[in-house]
Amino acid sequence: MPQTLHVERHFTSSEFVRDVVIGMADGLTVPFALAAGLSGAVQLTSIIVTAGLAEVAAGSIAMGLGGYLAARSDAEHYVSEKKREWHEVEMMPGEELAEVADLFREYGLSDDAIAPILSAFEANPKGWVDFMMKYELGLEEPDPKRALNSAATIAGAYIVGGLIPLAPYMLWKNPSQALVGSVAVTLTALLIFGYVKGRFTGTKPVRSALQTTLIGGLAASAAFLIAKMFS
Amino acid sequence: MPQTLHVERHFTSSEFVRDVVIGMADGLTVPFALAAGLSGAVQLTSIIVTAGLAEVAAGSIAMGLGGYLAARSDAEHYVSEKKREWHEVEMMPGEELAEVADLFREYGLSDDAIAPILSAFEANPKGWVDFMMKYELGLEEPDPKRALNSAATIAGAYIVGGLIPLAPYMLWKNPSQALVGSVAVTLTALLIFGYVKGRFTGTKPVRSALQTTLIGGLAASAAFLIAKMFS
Repeated sequence: MPQTLHVERHFTSSEFVRDVVIGMADGLTVPFALAAGLSGAVQLTSIIVTAGLAEVAAGSIAMGLGGYLAARSDAEHYVSEKKREWHEVEMMPGEELAEVADLFREYGLSDDAIAPILSAFEANPKGWVDFMMKYELGLEEPDPKRALNSAATIAGAYIVGGLIPLAPYMLWKNPSQALVGSVAVTLTALLIFGYVKGRFTGTKPVRSALQTTLIGGLAASAAFLIAKMFS
Repeated sequence: MPQTLHVERHFTSSEFVRDVVIGMADGLTVPFALAAGLSGAVQLTSIIVTAGLAEVAAGSIAMGLGGYLAARSDAEHYVSEKKREWHEVEMMPGEELAEVADLFREYGLSDDAIAPILSAFEANPKGWVDFMMKYELGLEEPDPKRALNSAATIAGAYIVGGLIPLAPYMLWKNPSQALVGSVAVTLTALLIFGYVKGRFTGTKPVRSALQTTLIGGLAASAAFLIAKMFS
């Protein structure tokens, strides 16, 4: 059944793929654009490589550590909301039952159909709390290992992505020559990355490839113009 | 009732605040770290300002346009999943009813309690599809205006955040002097930003302030070390 297939794919690959996409999209784009911008403003590729690597270090830490702390605070938020939900189910069951009833009434269920749901929940507070967590608050229980994995994946993908546009500046001394190489290598990488990303996330691959490349190209052009203006 | 209050706050302010937080957290951190890194490697603040502004241009476009396209593809994903769900409800209602039954069985409902839910859904396919979208797939209908707002908010917050650490480099010619000013201004801004962010997102404000400042400090230190090594 397509539905089941879809849901399974959604749950198994999505978090890892999402983290790689987040890290690599920015890693390919921002160091690329920064280096392209500086190519119009400085005489030596060594400064561009230094700035590019500083950016990759800063960006991977900001994104990785940011991702780690965000995932950890999601986990804490889940625990505190669950405690609150337990408290409400135990201390004011009447109001919570009314909330469940409202919820089902919205989907056109009659009070006669709702009554057995309410008694089933009253007899099973654990299931009731889980239901409220997922349905009323839209919260899924986070995986405890996720925070660290997510941080490492995002940071690693940012570094890998960021080294691609910088490589030509390490090989050539002349900024304009290196810029041509970097544009060629990075636009190719963005096309491939966008295509693969599209296949994983369900956007049309060709469109995803063009969009990703467009973002990189626009960011690099803007950085180039700004750097020209201020140098 | 605290629950209602919480949910309301969650729905009204969260998307705008989340976009500002996403943009400003990176805007304050990455240009700050890049400029700090270059301070240890170049002799003139003019190169640092050029690199910093190029980064702000690149980063705000990458994040803003990235946010725009992500929000738009969320909206398209919702439409296509809804179409699929309608198709399934109409073409294979038996299997979809079995899915609903499984879902409620997990929360401890008996088959007798489930039967009226199934007939209510059969009589109301629109409510049924909405229920499956929200509950089985965890998808909320996205706001059509959200994509553009989100892009503008993230990009604007990135630019505002990014100009703060760069300002001292515009005022002083000496990189080490400007670095001291940038560290002072940016760490103060990160503390305030982290504190306010904590108040909005429900993390303890003081902890959020310290965490945000720690990320900025670590990213800047790493960028400084990397730039020193390669210059």
